[in-house]
Amino acid sequence: MKRIEKVTDMAAVSGRLASEGKSIGFVPTMGYLHEGHLSLAREAGKENDVVIMSIFVNPAQFGPGEDFDSYPRDLERDAELAEKAGVDILFHPTPEEMYPENSEIRILPGRQADVLCGASRPGHFDGVLKVLTKLFHLTMPERAYFGQKDAQQLAIIETFVRDYNFPLEIRRVPTVREEDGLAKSSRNVRLTPEEREQAPAIYESLQQGARMFRESGDPDLALGTLRKSLGHIPGAETDYAEILEYPSLRPLSASSREAIIAAAVQFSGARLIDNILVNLEGKRS
Amino acid sequence: MKRIEKVTDMAAVSGRLASEGKSIGFVPTMGYLHEGHLSLAREAGKENDVVIMSIFVNPAQFGPGEDFDSYPRDLERDAELAEKAGVDILFHPTPEEMYPENSEIRILPGRQADVLCGASRPGHFDGVLKVLTKLFHLTMPERAYFGQKDAQQLAIIETFVRDYNFPLEIRRVPTVREEDGLAKSSRNVRLTPEEREQAPAIYESLQQGARMFRESGDPDLALGTLRKSLGHIPGAETDYAEILEYPSLRPLSASSREAIIAAAVQFSGARLIDNILVNLEGKRS
Repeated sequence: MKRIEKVTDMAAVSGRLASEGKSIGFVPTMGYLHEGHLSLAREAGKENDVVIMSIFVNPAQFGPGEDFDSYPRDLERDAELAEKAGVDILFHPTPEEMYPENSEIRILPGRQADVLCGASRPGHFDGVLKVLTKLFHLTMPERAYFGQKDAQQLAIIETFVRDYNFPLEIRRVPTVREEDGLAKSSRNVRLTPEEREQAPAIYESLQQGARMFRESGDPDLALGTLRKSLGHIPGAETDYAEILEYPSLRPLSASSREAIIAAAVQFSGARLIDNILVNLEGKRS
Repeated sequence: MKRIEKVTDMAAVSGRLASEGKSIGFVPTMGYLHEGHLSLAREAGKENDVVIMSIFVNPAQFGPGEDFDSYPRDLERDAELAEKAGVDILFHPTPEEMYPENSEIRILPGRQADVLCGASRPGHFDGVLKVLTKLFHLTMPERAYFGQKDAQQLAIIETFVRDYNFPLEIRRVPTVREEDGLAKSSRNVRLTPEEREQAPAIYESLQQGARMFRESGDPDLALGTLRKSLGHIPGAETDYAEILEYPSLRPLSASSREAIIAAAVQFSGARLIDNILVNLEGKRS
């Protein structure tokens, strides 16, 4: 596995690969890799000649008071895991490499960014679009891989790639879970042992909400079930619990074809998110 | 010369060329071609395997009350001229092809867009960055060619390409002028015969301002000369006359290395712009 730190080196390598007609699969991450990231890398390996993974804790997508400084990092362990998962090139630039200029040019997502995580993290998705535009241009992938766990990010990126004609395909990869159902996340290490025991209740609550939604077809009823269940998790505060159309993230309507049931829950040292997608085609009339 | 109307066809053709290792030179235009555009195409032909020109009157960069509907168009004449200038592929999509969705995602330039033309055309450069991002992704050029005449556009694009790591180089091409000095522009056809006779005075005024600037080193003195001279053009109203640092478009300082002297003048049926760049290196202490 090749390791690259410099933006100019990354651009030169991907430019050469592209001109040789090699297909590049790209997996952007913030590191502290877990099975979720590795499943993206393995998926990329199946479909492409070369797999590039980036590890970059992107300051532009953290707000003031958020956990940029304390976000977990372990580059040497990550490099070992990435290599085992079939990554060919690991791109791990510094913030100074990625943002040498304090650019005033911003990319603003629309209403898709005003709900769910976006409501409590103003500017977060601006930062996501900024770094992904740069990373897509630097790695020139044919396909880029994103986990369904960050469903709002995925929805916004799919829209961005479509509306701005990026020459690549976005691949949705299912959320990888612990055996007890907890979605894998780099932030899980910050749970206390007691919280770790309670955390699978997030996914259980989403499943209860999804079941009620499938049975009743009534999003309000389903939301009530979800919120009540989340409210019973000891030591956890519900940040949001929503049912929306996916990927538009607008309110559900009669023409909605897919719904997302999503929640964010705050524990003492970690805010966890999870979601379930529900296919509505043929289900509602 | 190949003509392409569909976005998907354009993406497929440029993708194939890129994977064959062919270098693409790209010349974005709004059509109604004149010698200025053709000089861009010829320049592109010297340095690249394939020259792609786009002709697209971009609604996103026209404000309400601006001349989108009346902007001059003549595709068949343009196609002939483009072919003679060495264009290999002419991409001329419809607005519906380019904007099938009413995208909410916007790219906002910073303070560079608040001066000169940007001050009186709010949102104009948002639209320019939107369409160029799409066109760059669709044509995948190694080099893109812009005329120095639209100096603010060029400055913003250079900054955007640098800050967002677009895998291409921006080439500045000098303004092409009529024999009497008037900068070539698609909008020149809208001048009355009397106005056409007066119009070269814009460039003459810029030259007077530049001369005063070089001699005195005093931007205020130069600006006074420029404004006074523009004020004497019969039937013309000065929209702006400015001297700024280039390409930042901030006020001049002791460390400025290049200056732009720029003006916009409104005639009865056309608003014309022009500019002169002044190299300051070694000139100021």
